Amino acid sequence: MSNLTSMITQFEFQLPPFPRGYHLITRRVLTELKSLPPTGILHLFIKHTSAGLTINENADPDVLTDFESIFNHLVPEHLPFLKHTMEGPDDMPAHIKASLVGSSVQIPITNGRLNLGTWQGLYLCEFRNRARGRHLIASIYT
Amino acid sequence: MSNLTSMITQFEFQLPPFPRGYHLITRRVLTELKSLPPTGILHLFIKHTSAGLTINENADPDVLTDFESIFNHLVPEHLPFLKHTMEGPDDMPAHIKASLVGSSVQIPITNGRLNLGTWQGLYLCEFRNRARGRHLIASIYT
Amino acid sequence: MSNLTSMITQFEFQLPPFPRGYHLITRRVLTELKSLPPTGILHLFIKHTSAGLTINENADPDVLTDFESIFNHLVPEHLPFLKHTMEGPDDMPAHIKASLVGSSVQIPITNGRLNLGTWQGLYLCEFRNRARGRHLIASIYT
Repeated sequence: MSNLTSMITQFEFQLPPFPRGYHLITRRVLTELKSLPPTGILHLFIKHTSAGLTINENADPDVLTDFESIFNHLVPEHLPFLKHTMEGPDDMPAHIKASLVGSSVQIPITNGRLNLGTWQGLYLCEFRNRARGRHLIASIYT
Repeated sequence: MSNLTSMITQFEFQLPPFPRGYHLITRRVLTELKSLPPTGILHLFIKHTSAGLTINENADPDVLTDFESIFNHLVPEHLPFLKHTMEGPDDMPAHIKASLVGSSVQIPITNGRLNLGTWQGLYLCEFRNRARGRHLIASIYT
Repeated sequence: MSNLTSMITQFEFQLPPFPRGYHLITRRVLTELKSLPPTGILHLFIKHTSAGLTINENADPDVLTDFESIFNHLVPEHLPFLKHTMEGPDDMPAHIKASLVGSSVQIPITNGRLNLGTWQGLYLCEFRNRARGRHLIASIYT
């Protein structure tokens, strides 16, 4: 490894608060990134444990509400055996959902663009009923 | 960051259509990759929202069918509250499963080989009843 | 791509055996890593199919036990349709859980430190009732 140079451009930015649910943020993130290298990978990381990032369908808004319904069905609130309940009934399910979808995504960059499939978009998954803006770190390596 | 050089080799390839279920594709992907660097990381990305990639047990074929059974148990078809149903009962569960397993894997490359554990193999997770060949992007960085 | 230099430092290490459950290993991993570059990304990979890595809440120990409870609720043992049962009732659920949380995490490195959020810690997810020490590969790229 050489410590003299780095192939990584990295910066942190904040999303505005979003309501609980799944939100397409592809365009918003592209605006933050400004320019992309010809070839590379984007690593996007969320610095929180009750929100997540994932890649999924970018066309029908019903998919976003079905995500909310199915994940609530998978990890319901008020499970009787939970101990970590002092931050509200949405908190512990939020932590589990965060680990199910993950706290980072990696997307190839090709010809200066995110090389997503036609139907792929980037989701912010907001699992809390009320949340502040979320902090993300973008690392682009070439 | 230097824009003059890149440490990434990247190319896209297509898998043939696979039936719904979980399929070991380690050898097939290695054939596509041809040569690997001495040290690096492979990032493999699937450009679809109703199929996924994961790493799991490579020995007993029953594990693959149990994956299919358990994920269908977790995210069954015909959940009564779903709205996104016009593409068939397998479509919305496919999107959820894709976000549960994820759309990319990262595998270390050591001594010119994928540094997987003895029992680890790469799975294509095909969540649709009928699907065309899936497009993948391999990015190798050194 | 240049094959003459690499921007990656990579090494393998072994964690001691942990009991079934979720365990904070941030400090232990930092000790293994010794020094970090000013800017980079850490890729941590687990070479097993019945354990996983994830990032989640680092403060309240109840979160760790709730993780165990909820994942057991999601993927219970003794599901009647399973075929891969000869390695014990905890084995096939362990494989599924490993794919749900994933076998690797990526964490940005900024100013020579892991750039985790205030409440984020690294979890070893041990899904087997009895397991040996787990082998991990750390790859740091700059």
